[in-house]
Amino acid sequence: VTTLRVVICGFGRVGRAFAELLVRKEEQLARDYELAIRATAVVDLGGCAVAPDGLALGDLLAHVTNGGTVETFPGAGRPGLSGVDAIRSGLADVLVETTPTNFVDGEPGLAHFRAAIGSGLHIVTASKGPMVVRYGELGALARSAGVRIMTSAATAAALPTLDVALTCLAGTEILSVEGILNGTTNYILSRMRSEGVSYTEVLADAQRLGIAEPDPTFDVEGRDTANKILLIANGVFRTELSLADIPVEGITGITPDRLRQADAAGTVVKLVGRAERKDGQVRASVGPVELPANHPLATVNGSEKAISYLTDTMDRVTVSGGKSSPMGAAAALLKDVINLNRETIAR
Amino acid sequence: VTTLRVVICGFGRVGRAFAELLVRKEEQLARDYELAIRATAVVDLGGCAVAPDGLALGDLLAHVTNGGTVETFPGAGRPGLSGVDAIRSGLADVLVETTPTNFVDGEPGLAHFRAAIGSGLHIVTASKGPMVVRYGELGALARSAGVRIMTSAATAAALPTLDVALTCLAGTEILSVEGILNGTTNYILSRMRSEGVSYTEVLADAQRLGIAEPDPTFDVEGRDTANKILLIANGVFRTELSLADIPVEGITGITPDRLRQADAAGTVVKLVGRAERKDGQVRASVGPVELPANHPLATVNGSEKAISYLTDTMDRVTVSGGKSSPMGAAAALLKDVINLNRETIAR
Repeated sequence: VTTLRVVICGFGRVGRAFAELLVRKEEQLARDYELAIRATAVVDLGGCAVAPDGLALGDLLAHVTNGGTVETFPGAGRPGLSGVDAIRSGLADVLVETTPTNFVDGEPGLAHFRAAIGSGLHIVTASKGPMVVRYGELGALARSAGVRIMTSAATAAALPTLDVALTCLAGTEILSVEGILNGTTNYILSRMRSEGVSYTEVLADAQRLGIAEPDPTFDVEGRDTANKILLIANGVFRTELSLADIPVEGITGITPDRLRQADAAGTVVKLVGRAERKDGQVRASVGPVELPANHPLATVNGSEKAISYLTDTMDRVTVSGGKSSPMGAAAALLKDVINLNRETIAR
Repeated sequence: VTTLRVVICGFGRVGRAFAELLVRKEEQLARDYELAIRATAVVDLGGCAVAPDGLALGDLLAHVTNGGTVETFPGAGRPGLSGVDAIRSGLADVLVETTPTNFVDGEPGLAHFRAAIGSGLHIVTASKGPMVVRYGELGALARSAGVRIMTSAATAAALPTLDVALTCLAGTEILSVEGILNGTTNYILSRMRSEGVSYTEVLADAQRLGIAEPDPTFDVEGRDTANKILLIANGVFRTELSLADIPVEGITGITPDRLRQADAAGTVVKLVGRAERKDGQVRASVGPVELPANHPLATVNGSEKAISYLTDTMDRVTVSGGKSSPMGAAAALLKDVINLNRETIAR
């Protein structure tokens, strides 16, 4: 059994779901992967909980659920200890980053990433911020330090995207990738189409149902999709696009009329993140696209997500589904830790 | 750059497509995977072509296309040399098995498998025979010899199936797997449904078009699907089912009437291979199933294939597509060789 020590940065819904999974899956990880994952530090806003032999995560979760904070966790709480300090303490092999995504400067995740790479920790992240803001820099640092950055949880989470390309399509040349990568906008477009109602009406309803955020800008303007296609395109095509390279259009201008016209033309309007290599150049974009009715993304409805790869030797391969929830994101983090371990030993 | 030496057994459509791929992808393999794959032996009915430093595959393909045989290939032909002898010669690291599948005794593949394991070669196979006939025995032999058997090309080829479960869903518990794993039967059912015509009528047309075999028994009686779900179920659930454990029903008894009734009930009849773990027991079966119209397999039409996993933490993940052709199978073989290399180094 290999033991991997992780520091969990961020203890909101995704961080806690990940901790829950570690508790619940302990036996399965030992049996199926000969792997023991110990959380030696959990970092939140007011400090850390630290235990070199591994925190009792079940107790920590109960403590936090009862209104406690990580830094007041009996016997392990370290008020004021920062994430960077915890990462640099030498207590962990992997950083599991779940702090809120911040696209202005990528913080606090970016500082965590730099500290982790500097201390030789691999990184598994649900937070997109650091990689979106500093893809090239972090990639170069990680390569020269011999550490890996795994982004499944940041690239559509429980819908497998990048690993499908890198493992299941290994050896093919990927000609293009197209994805419905944001559940909220797909939900809105699906209902606008099936019910013939306006964008604002469906949005309001989606907000009431908790499907759309109170401030939906990030989703409906296509920026969430842009961040995901950026990471996917860079991984698939081994390039270093930045957000500025990706023209982005959202769905706020879509009318029921346009959807009806598309219907009449035998097409379906979807918000698609797209990337392809053409003449040696990788181009990515985000915007509403009229897909032919027989396109595999055309039948992906509601808040479901999907990704479709066109390859040279395997033709088209499409993946759909995957839970959209903190638990789905946590499951993607766990997957990356498992696969990281497999690949790391390979070095 | 790592060099992997392969012996290709069988030089029919799949074996040749694989050889073609090795020629075409040489540069890509070096660039993307730091991998050089050399075919040191190619085995066919009348003997072998052997070259310790790697055969000139482009020339061999031209020689065979012009009516030659591998054993008459100038400078390398070895008339009468058997596959087993070639495998045991110490010239290769990996057996790439593409001989015709034989479910009576698994030969000649089974002898190749045993020789390969005995000589420490990993196995990548498009032939299902040996694993279907002797799953438990070959698995045990391979484990004790420390070699791996990779079956992507035998389990729906260019449609990724098993590797999705093992890599992209790592850490989840797979509750069930359902697949439309045979393109011919899905084509027949799709046309029977959309055109309201009889099984025999569509079958005859599919035979004219080359979509169904002159003897379609193996496909239409569900046996091809059974073989695939057997290998997938055993891999996913880490068990050792044999064909006798799988009840199999084909599509020969399906009438347009039954499809119309299903339509009226809001369902779609598909030939589904299914496996699940329940109360600690793995059960698999093959037969026509009435899927609800919103089931992700319900919209998979024509000769397309798909597989759908239900998991504990990622919900449902469905993969569809993948080229059905010798080139698709060859691409799956190549993928396995690449991933085998990654995982082997990990030991």
